[in-house]
Amino acid sequence: MKAIILSIGDELVSGQALDTNSADLARRLGELGVAAVEHRTVGDDRRAIAAALTAAAAAADVVLVTGGLGPTADDLTRQALADAMGAELVLDRERLAESEAVFRGRGRTMQPANRIQAMVPAGATSMPNPLGTAPGIAARLGRADVYVLPGVPHEMQRMFDECIAPRLVGQGAVVHRRVHCFGKGESDIAAGIAELMERGRNPAVGTTASAGMITVRVAARGASRQEAQDLAERTVAEVRRRLGNLAVGLDEQTMPAAVGHLLRQAEATLATAESCTGGLIGELITSVAGSSDYYLGGVVAYGNDAKCDLLAVPEGLIRQHGAVSESVAAAMAEGCRKRFGADWAVSVTGIAGPSGGSEDKPVGLVYIGLAGAAGTQVHRHILPVTRDIVRLRAALTALDHLRLALMGQEA
Amino acid sequence: MKAIILSIGDELVSGQALDTNSADLARRLGELGVAAVEHRTVGDDRRAIAAALTAAAAAADVVLVTGGLGPTADDLTRQALADAMGAELVLDRERLAESEAVFRGRGRTMQPANRIQAMVPAGATSMPNPLGTAPGIAARLGRADVYVLPGVPHEMQRMFDECIAPRLVGQGAVVHRRVHCFGKGESDIAAGIAELMERGRNPAVGTTASAGMITVRVAARGASRQEAQDLAERTVAEVRRRLGNLAVGLDEQTMPAAVGHLLRQAEATLATAESCTGGLIGELITSVAGSSDYYLGGVVAYGNDAKCDLLAVPEGLIRQHGAVSESVAAAMAEGCRKRFGADWAVSVTGIAGPSGGSEDKPVGLVYIGLAGAAGTQVHRHILPVTRDIVRLRAALTALDHLRLALMGQEA
Repeated sequence: MKAIILSIGDELVSGQALDTNSADLARRLGELGVAAVEHRTVGDDRRAIAAALTAAAAAADVVLVTGGLGPTADDLTRQALADAMGAELVLDRERLAESEAVFRGRGRTMQPANRIQAMVPAGATSMPNPLGTAPGIAARLGRADVYVLPGVPHEMQRMFDECIAPRLVGQGAVVHRRVHCFGKGESDIAAGIAELMERGRNPAVGTTASAGMITVRVAARGASRQEAQDLAERTVAEVRRRLGNLAVGLDEQTMPAAVGHLLRQAEATLATAESCTGGLIGELITSVAGSSDYYLGGVVAYGNDAKCDLLAVPEGLIRQHGAVSESVAAAMAEGCRKRFGADWAVSVTGIAGPSGGSEDKPVGLVYIGLAGAAGTQVHRHILPVTRDIVRLRAALTALDHLRLALMGQEA
Repeated sequence: MKAIILSIGDELVSGQALDTNSADLARRLGELGVAAVEHRTVGDDRRAIAAALTAAAAAADVVLVTGGLGPTADDLTRQALADAMGAELVLDRERLAESEAVFRGRGRTMQPANRIQAMVPAGATSMPNPLGTAPGIAARLGRADVYVLPGVPHEMQRMFDECIAPRLVGQGAVVHRRVHCFGKGESDIAAGIAELMERGRNPAVGTTASAGMITVRVAARGASRQEAQDLAERTVAEVRRRLGNLAVGLDEQTMPAAVGHLLRQAEATLATAESCTGGLIGELITSVAGSSDYYLGGVVAYGNDAKCDLLAVPEGLIRQHGAVSESVAAAMAEGCRKRFGADWAVSVTGIAGPSGGSEDKPVGLVYIGLAGAAGTQVHRHILPVTRDIVRLRAALTALDHLRLALMGQEA
């Protein structure tokens, strides 16, 4: 069973407002086993709306429409549906009475203009809107069931769940899962799960690169929610088995949450010592609610004085090896761990660029220190050479070394 | 001139991700006088993409496409465009060399799979992507000029402004300027420049709310680049005149760069003391290249011990007033300024939520301290109550207080 979602409004098509209804409805449909195959947005243009309705009704089993049901001159969805059906608009007295009651309830009298909201194309039925004055419309057009809903998100959501979802059930279910990965590029990750990503497979598996992480998306369809969940679970397990340590976390659990979870499990605390990342590691860690349970704090040691004064890095070490060096990274991590009395401390010192690079120390060179009870390790990386990406990759890489150490893996 | 915008991706059509590119492109097109009449989203389905391309190319003068240019099996936009054109994919050796260079620069070798990203349908031309590995494609299909861009927002925005916008205005030139604003909401900012924002004006003026800032976008069309620049410059000056201190910076100069510029002018140094923002202020400041000239570093005093040990906040103060209090914010800023020997220090302590709020100290309560040679000021704010937004707004507000202080304004 396939669905097409239409959203109507000049403010949407011109980009002055962002359409969130279509994605919301697509998710709700997916959970009922109905696959949204297309979203389409057109402006407040009666001919364009009618044409979009006709095309959608010829290509899908279900057409969901949001917007253009208001009482003003630029609300034309109702009329356009009548045009597409070749029908007249007729008054639904029951809805009119409801709308009048809503206005009375708000201590207002209904404007004549609002009467249009109680009209539906002959042959269609109107759907009550418990939260607003614009009722919805259910109609048959071409081979499709068409449902028109108001554009106000909470009204349309309630009406979908109460009036439309019940008519669509029995279509099975779709369950979406995400596996967040780090440590290799998108093409490398994809290569590791190539067969799972073949087109037409169920569950469908895809990858997305975003904010320095690679996410493997799993969408499983089943006759029941349970069946879809089991299918998704099996594929998620296979993805994790194949990707091993590259798989950081599931669903809401991105890098900072995964590290937090491991720290919590180990009842361990963390402190951070950042130079070129300037606070980004702390920002990522504390983006997780409850991180105060394991994160004590950190030092942004951007200048060399701060490295010496707050992290007890010996001045001679910086003079001898430079601030961006293995030994300074180690001293920063150890000084930070001692200073905060933390079980673990991570440090980052590097050259984010665009300037400051040299022959032997190029832009993108980053040393990451990790100090724990068992000792200190330092890793050297050459990261992509744009400032933002160096910093983000350095921060995530530091957290990834910690993650692997907490898992008892060789970082 | 009419445009249709296509976005490609299973994650979009299934509602797992929200398409912001289409609205963004519609706004940019509008600023050039090109009306977006339809947005359409389809999944990673070669036939569906080809059909959508063919239909769009028959109905519009310009078709903009985002997504599906990656190296993996579910990236099919390139192949679908070739199908719609009835053409073969051919290798663009220049782009291949560029992509290989990008990978080398990152110290990685390019996977064979990435070669596909350097291929274009015969008869089409590829467009350089200065920020990523997926080049764009420009082609003629039906009556339309088709431009395919990667789905990564900052990549596609840059490519639109640099490669596509100039082609949409024929021989003439389009100059884009941005005025970054902070301190009032989007509708208040817009109200202050209402006439400038009237439709059909040149330069076209629009507003965008993003990452806690309001950006006024100015797009000037002229017969020559010089003419467009002059037009843009005059409007930018008028926007700044009307918005006064709300205008933070121009173009690349967002809040951190504007503050950095002022610190540099004053030959002053800065240190930061962050609690609920967890390092975000330091991260924002150090996102600007060369910030080591004025930023000494900071302390992420997430736990109370860190506040006392590293920032010399008296334990009694925390016991008496709580960690989230005016007096602790002041002590954090003063302790930080002393500790780093900085001219200025900003401090933030607050309740980011979702838990930890109370009757008299709700989630969103933030105290911002600002210590300078002339003394210390503390500002109390109640910020929007979602964790991410509280943190971002708190960080930007702290920087804005510093900005106004550096300008000798009442913060």
